[in-house]
Amino acid sequence: MTALTELSSADLRELHSQLTAEYDALVKRGLSLDITRGKPSPAQLDLSNALLTLPGEGQYRDAAGTDLRNYGGPQGLPELREIFSDVLRVPVPQLLALGNSSLSLMHDAVTFAMLHGLPESERPWSREETVSFLCPVPGYDRHFTITEHLGIRMVPVAMTESGPDIEQVERLLAEDPTIRGIWCVPVHSNPTGAIYTEEVARALVSLPAAADFRIFWDNAYAVHHLTDDVPEPIDILSLAAEAGNPDRVFVFASTSKVTYASAGVAFFGSSPANVSWYLSHLAVQSIGPDKINQLRHVRLLHDAEGVAEHMRRHREIIGPKFEAVSEVFERRLASYEAGSWTSPTGGYFVSLDVHEGCAARAVALAAQAGIAVTPAGSTYPYKKDPTDANIRIAPTMPPLAELVDALEGLCTAILLAEVEQLVG
Amino acid sequence: MTALTELSSADLRELHSQLTAEYDALVKRGLSLDITRGKPSPAQLDLSNALLTLPGEGQYRDAAGTDLRNYGGPQGLPELREIFSDVLRVPVPQLLALGNSSLSLMHDAVTFAMLHGLPESERPWSREETVSFLCPVPGYDRHFTITEHLGIRMVPVAMTESGPDIEQVERLLAEDPTIRGIWCVPVHSNPTGAIYTEEVARALVSLPAAADFRIFWDNAYAVHHLTDDVPEPIDILSLAAEAGNPDRVFVFASTSKVTYASAGVAFFGSSPANVSWYLSHLAVQSIGPDKINQLRHVRLLHDAEGVAEHMRRHREIIGPKFEAVSEVFERRLASYEAGSWTSPTGGYFVSLDVHEGCAARAVALAAQAGIAVTPAGSTYPYKKDPTDANIRIAPTMPPLAELVDALEGLCTAILLAEVEQLVG
Repeated sequence: MTALTELSSADLRELHSQLTAEYDALVKRGLSLDITRGKPSPAQLDLSNALLTLPGEGQYRDAAGTDLRNYGGPQGLPELREIFSDVLRVPVPQLLALGNSSLSLMHDAVTFAMLHGLPESERPWSREETVSFLCPVPGYDRHFTITEHLGIRMVPVAMTESGPDIEQVERLLAEDPTIRGIWCVPVHSNPTGAIYTEEVARALVSLPAAADFRIFWDNAYAVHHLTDDVPEPIDILSLAAEAGNPDRVFVFASTSKVTYASAGVAFFGSSPANVSWYLSHLAVQSIGPDKINQLRHVRLLHDAEGVAEHMRRHREIIGPKFEAVSEVFERRLASYEAGSWTSPTGGYFVSLDVHEGCAARAVALAAQAGIAVTPAGSTYPYKKDPTDANIRIAPTMPPLAELVDALEGLCTAILLAEVEQLVG
Repeated sequence: MTALTELSSADLRELHSQLTAEYDALVKRGLSLDITRGKPSPAQLDLSNALLTLPGEGQYRDAAGTDLRNYGGPQGLPELREIFSDVLRVPVPQLLALGNSSLSLMHDAVTFAMLHGLPESERPWSREETVSFLCPVPGYDRHFTITEHLGIRMVPVAMTESGPDIEQVERLLAEDPTIRGIWCVPVHSNPTGAIYTEEVARALVSLPAAADFRIFWDNAYAVHHLTDDVPEPIDILSLAAEAGNPDRVFVFASTSKVTYASAGVAFFGSSPANVSWYLSHLAVQSIGPDKINQLRHVRLLHDAEGVAEHMRRHREIIGPKFEAVSEVFERRLASYEAGSWTSPTGGYFVSLDVHEGCAARAVALAAQAGIAVTPAGSTYPYKKDPTDANIRIAPTMPPLAELVDALEGLCTAILLAEVEQLVG
């Protein structure tokens, strides 16, 4: 086979007929498949079913003897913070264990900054003419939704395999004093799977920036590896302190994709000054986290090695799904040069770039055939992918056979969209 | 005995010596007692210990078969909303079951209004010169902390036995267009135990007010009765609709004092338009509530009658503590006319008024004797009780014997403070 762009008009027309027939047959199958969101599958959730009877009869005290059923303990259960302290590289006293969603913690951190400002802010962010965030693209749609919803201007920055393009970040920070934050998923980035290098991390904490500039270090996939090639965790808080910017980083993480997506525990970590700042606002909002659920997690996971072992069982379940993505794309798209995709060593996504101007059409064609794919553009601020090329693949949720069905159908839709464009 | 204010100088001086001796003996006991916060006691928490092994093996689906372990379901578990719908008088579709704290829901509702405004707002509240809330006093300190923290001006309104003084509310609403909210605890009010009458409720939803004026109807003690004289729930949403102000009321409640204080479920109820508004902001903040914990609550409580039965067991535990408060105050304070106190038929508090100008001194004397009482002034906006007379008593947490010890000591402190004032 030849690259689509090198096919003759006649060959393109023939391929168009062939793909149209293939697509019509696909539509007739009346599929109902969904690869839109990075959700764990039921088999993955089953790994944590001990939570359904934990912490167990008479178990409601922490190691210090505190009754966890009552109010209080705004910092969360020390034993649980201990388990995640090492892999997140946040000392226990600076690591808070809170509710069921790190997204809520990120939302609330931005909200607190909007209403009250950070310690270094001249005024609350909501009183500034403009507040901007750097948004490495493609990136996580729910990050962008938070900043868009709060009226924060989003400035895209190109992602590389080692993190955001640092030259671009440096130039933007130098040019634009309204920049107050950057969204980062440092390990197995959403959706490209990129892993930030220590060099990139050092640059991010070192570059000149506004005093209240914050790196939202969303370490969502810190322990979610698909190979034995486990990256060494970056001690971002120490790097920031060494660079003379100890208060520049907010670390977030959760067990949403370790235990239960709905019923996990989320973490906030930062410098002592930032943790005090966060707690001062949290004290007004909250009567304390659900410490019983935190105790459940301690009893389930035991320690850092328990987490690693638990994640190896996740890998056994989802590894074959990621392999299926590579296999189908390689077989269906490679020789046509119809797209390029990432091969992540962890996380929840594959990032696929199709021919420019074809992503939205391909996703629409797939939808008409009963295959729900994340809307094209979702990985960009304001849901606008200027090249209309990026599609995010979330392979974890469906059973393997359904996943392959969905991917095959999506490939048909992609090829049809691209050929349509070429035949004009 | 005679009222303190009617004692002769000589008698006052003698009483002063006697109380000083009594107080010195009290200090020497080196007590460490705490009646500061409305916390459930361990015996109360024990009533819900089935939560420690619920929902049980293999139990993670709702009645419709949805896997509750995964993301989604922003409105919360229908079965749980069903259980609380009747007593809260909120139809299930308009009642959201969310996280572990109704305080967080109130905080977030005010925050959403600050940053985005209500549907009827001309602009976000944070863009208004001044936003004010009416604060019935004495009231709940954590309500006042939210409004103070967000820079909302607080205007005190006198509480009566049937709710806030409606004439005062009417006058303030007519005079002051900056008023956008009122904090209400309609049943067994914190701290007076007042129960709003339907007449007061009707007035609150009917009085002319700003289009985005909201009643924060914190029904924290809806099912927390201490007698068989259970008040008929007020259907505040229907009253508001009948009055032509269907969107005026936000209803809040939680199981924090039904099941576990740290690990319960909170509710938000309102008109369809307000629920849509709330969900539109919640969708940005949250990946959905902890539905497994909601399922635990369904399995523990079963139905509305299950809740009522559960609350009768609470009453058996805390009823004697409330009786002890009355008994000690009656015996120690009544004949001296040293104070007046409420005899609530439910809720978590007794409100005590001592002689004007003596509350802070009495609380300080108690503290020096190792008896921690809620700081005087806490029940007022900005923690300033203009009369320095109100003290909130929270009798539920300590064992009965400790509670009586604390109350006896507090009475000594109160009498000493009052006699000090009279001897000059």
